[in-house]
Amino acid sequence: MTLSEKEILFKSNFSQPEQILNSEIGEYVTQMFAHSPGKWNETQIDEIVNDFSQEFLSTKNANTNIDIELIIRNFGDSKIPTIPTDFESYFQSLNENVVAHSIHTSSPQFIGHMTSALPSFVRPLAKLMTAMNQNAVKIETAKALSFCEREALAMMHRQIYNFSDNFYTEHIQNNQSTLGILVSGGTTANITALWCARNKSLGAKNEFLGIEKEGLSAALNFYGYKGAVVIGSELMHFSFDKAADLMGISTQNLIRVAVDSNNRVNIRALRQAVADCRQKNLHIIAIVGIAGTTDSGSVDPLEDIAEIAQENNVHFHVDAAWGGPIIFSRKHQQKLAGIEKADSVTIDGHKQLYLPMGIGMVFFRDPYLASSIEKHASYTMRKGSFDLGKRSLEGSRPGMALFLHAALKLIGLKGYEFLIDEGIRKTQYMAARISVMPEFELLAEPDTNLLIYRYVPEHFRDVIAKKHLTETDNQIINNFNEYLQKMQRQIGRTFISRTTKTTISLDKEFPVIAMRAVIANPLTTEEDIEAVLNDQIQIASEISISHFSKLNN
Amino acid sequence: MTLSEKEILFKSNFSQPEQILNSEIGEYVTQMFAHSPGKWNETQIDEIVNDFSQEFLSTKNANTNIDIELIIRNFGDSKIPTIPTDFESYFQSLNENVVAHSIHTSSPQFIGHMTSALPSFVRPLAKLMTAMNQNAVKIETAKALSFCEREALAMMHRQIYNFSDNFYTEHIQNNQSTLGILVSGGTTANITALWCARNKSLGAKNEFLGIEKEGLSAALNFYGYKGAVVIGSELMHFSFDKAADLMGISTQNLIRVAVDSNNRVNIRALRQAVADCRQKNLHIIAIVGIAGTTDSGSVDPLEDIAEIAQENNVHFHVDAAWGGPIIFSRKHQQKLAGIEKADSVTIDGHKQLYLPMGIGMVFFRDPYLASSIEKHASYTMRKGSFDLGKRSLEGSRPGMALFLHAALKLIGLKGYEFLIDEGIRKTQYMAARISVMPEFELLAEPDTNLLIYRYVPEHFRDVIAKKHLTETDNQIINNFNEYLQKMQRQIGRTFISRTTKTTISLDKEFPVIAMRAVIANPLTTEEDIEAVLNDQIQIASEISISHFSKLNN
Repeated sequence: MTLSEKEILFKSNFSQPEQILNSEIGEYVTQMFAHSPGKWNETQIDEIVNDFSQEFLSTKNANTNIDIELIIRNFGDSKIPTIPTDFESYFQSLNENVVAHSIHTSSPQFIGHMTSALPSFVRPLAKLMTAMNQNAVKIETAKALSFCEREALAMMHRQIYNFSDNFYTEHIQNNQSTLGILVSGGTTANITALWCARNKSLGAKNEFLGIEKEGLSAALNFYGYKGAVVIGSELMHFSFDKAADLMGISTQNLIRVAVDSNNRVNIRALRQAVADCRQKNLHIIAIVGIAGTTDSGSVDPLEDIAEIAQENNVHFHVDAAWGGPIIFSRKHQQKLAGIEKADSVTIDGHKQLYLPMGIGMVFFRDPYLASSIEKHASYTMRKGSFDLGKRSLEGSRPGMALFLHAALKLIGLKGYEFLIDEGIRKTQYMAARISVMPEFELLAEPDTNLLIYRYVPEHFRDVIAKKHLTETDNQIINNFNEYLQKMQRQIGRTFISRTTKTTISLDKEFPVIAMRAVIANPLTTEEDIEAVLNDQIQIASEISISHFSKLNN
Repeated sequence: MTLSEKEILFKSNFSQPEQILNSEIGEYVTQMFAHSPGKWNETQIDEIVNDFSQEFLSTKNANTNIDIELIIRNFGDSKIPTIPTDFESYFQSLNENVVAHSIHTSSPQFIGHMTSALPSFVRPLAKLMTAMNQNAVKIETAKALSFCEREALAMMHRQIYNFSDNFYTEHIQNNQSTLGILVSGGTTANITALWCARNKSLGAKNEFLGIEKEGLSAALNFYGYKGAVVIGSELMHFSFDKAADLMGISTQNLIRVAVDSNNRVNIRALRQAVADCRQKNLHIIAIVGIAGTTDSGSVDPLEDIAEIAQENNVHFHVDAAWGGPIIFSRKHQQKLAGIEKADSVTIDGHKQLYLPMGIGMVFFRDPYLASSIEKHASYTMRKGSFDLGKRSLEGSRPGMALFLHAALKLIGLKGYEFLIDEGIRKTQYMAARISVMPEFELLAEPDTNLLIYRYVPEHFRDVIAKKHLTETDNQIINNFNEYLQKMQRQIGRTFISRTTKTTISLDKEFPVIAMRAVIANPLTTEEDIEAVLNDQIQIASEISISHFSKLNN
């Protein structure tokens, strides 16, 4: 059946709400909830939507080249329609106005962000999850799912910590234990980890009831601290700013330590920062290590950080939102050595576990740590229950565990290992290509599967090779790269993101605008990588360099 | 095609991973991501999953009567399989172990929690959303969707605040304005609202850089406060405990004011609490009004609270996670009068907007308030961009706006009005039935579509009628109701939740264990309500009262 045939069928089978009388609206709406075939035949909508999905998924371009202003024109109506809109026109406009101008995150030439192609089984599973509509906050609205979630989290925990069989037998389905918490994303996972660390380290003691009950000021006062800090590399994700702000410790007390030329935290500087805080009588809530910076995918020396944390008896958190799944690769897992010493670890399912958006996780070395944030209510979350919402920042939440559980089983250790290895292999290929192409400059050797580089206009290629680049030259190149990235995004054939990296040359700090590639789509081939680079070269050739020289006069 | 025929087809079309050689795993996994028909034919999985869904959705029982211990046995494996599990056995076990023992939240006789049946169009839409896999954190991963989300939030904002056409024209797609934020649930919405209120009220002034940069202690110090509080009724949702803890103000400084016999905050006591805090030099971050308590659906007198907030120049937040959609009902919207004076309002999409789990919202009267929590990063969330993640607790998040947008259009004002009116009408029916049934005692007149009541064992019916109930009697009835609710849940034919309500009699506080009905499923009929009550009567008749008398000897 072609799409247009389906549209006709669709039209003829659905009643037209324009013609609905007020008295019929109840019947019409109730039908929407019914499971029997009829006017609101789910199967027919399903077929239409399948066509939209397939068309969307098979598009190779990263994006359409529509102007943002034209999109905005379609979304300027703040009035909810009085009577129901008919299905046909709604789904048609949804396809024309939303689906058509959405980002093809699964395109093999969209290699600029951490959002990627997904395995096909997640799409039917999404429908099943929605049909089941479990609320994972409590057993009474998520019976088997609560235990399924615990099992999936335990599997990930074991990959990180690899404790004994006995440990997992004891904790996997013990309602007093929390091996991990499933949350909506890495930000909530990082906030949760720091919240636990803060509450544990400033807990009840003698007459003091703990920070939860008495607050931050009283806690600092009782323990005799002048303030509280979190320490990590300057490349910490901005979720840590949110956490520091939200928890009341201030973003100024999020201590950002310098990194080396490979974007890894400088261990000497970190050690110094810890000593400084202690000397200033500041309570260190946690030291953060990054396993896969957002900018360049680099991994901090986790072993060394673990040692510093241990020496100072401080909570060690690893933000492995991006890089966590590298543990699946026997070839590369050494990069994460030390992660098993972390008190808490963040991993995002919707990044390198190839799950749909909305799956963050935080894991705990100590299965009882999360009791420091436990809350109860009279209508639910009772003590001793299996209600997962007892120890969680979020309340009601969907059964996203279904995706995690299915993927761990259906992809397996070796499947994930392949995905990780391939991403890194292809990134190395891209780095090698960039190194030999005169049009580009590689800005750092890739640690994992993120790559930063920039385009060098012809005029500056000699100067760069001779390392004679002036600050003004650098600024012109920066402007050029920013413009190039925006043009590429607007044209929409391919996509690379951009970031700003600080480099030091002749004792001066230069902000360098960098192109940022993320290679995580199993469908991306070496040809796709060539195509993306060639697209940039072609667009660059159409940009007049004089435009950028003038900007700096 | 029958299910078993499909199973055969399924089996014959999928390769068996047990037989996969290591060298084939790469090919096998890559196929999972391909869009072409082949081994990993999405259509076939889709058909299998559709059958699971349809079977699940058409089951009338609330739950199976399986013992929790038997479920636990199926989820004790912490090892991820080395090679991929074959699809057939995974989906079969998923159906047997998870789907079969999940809660039928869409059953018309599951009337105990705020999770309900959903309109059928959300299931295909869930698949489309997952196929698109947009990341709503930024334009570069969610182009048209970002504007679609803003439009949907503006539509809800207009329902609450009803500002002028000019207001919406100015703000609906203005990247400096935030009419609302889409979050994963009501808890995050409430936390976000209080976070904005805290940061705005303790912001930068003169040499003080604001609480975000300098922290809570410095802020209290600069402004000359001894502490910071949030004030609301004692029935505030436990997300406020989370917020008070997380923000560092302490759960003790979440001031819970007494309610009247209808579970609405006592305005005189509230006024007194505000005066006490001012007198003690405590900064009031916000006064909270509840539109639909979790326990009993009651709505605080919002007009009066607004007045107190205004007089004291304090942020007024309304937690309308449950009750917000009552604004759609011309008959009942008067109950929410005053909500339009709130500085911020929480509404859950996954409650009375009948959307899938994972959709919370917070709305702001002042479109610039959310700038108090704005954050930036070099790789994204740039100033001046349309990136929605700039002002949001969460980072990466799914395109749940698709559900909200579709539902507002497809159900429309009158459709939602019908759903609200019907829920309240059926609740009044249930209350009327309970009033005339000797087996039950109605514990409060329902304000909206939540109802609390209890079963009264025959022995106590006379005593209750004559109001001669002793504390011991009450305790026996409590124990009986708790046991009855657990039995009903375990048997699984029907479902009612329970809560604890404090009532005062003869100057003594009695904790009363109450049955709690939530009538929000359009498929629930008056016959279903009768069936649920009769199920309780039947189960009660099989419970020996002597068992509970003994407990108290």
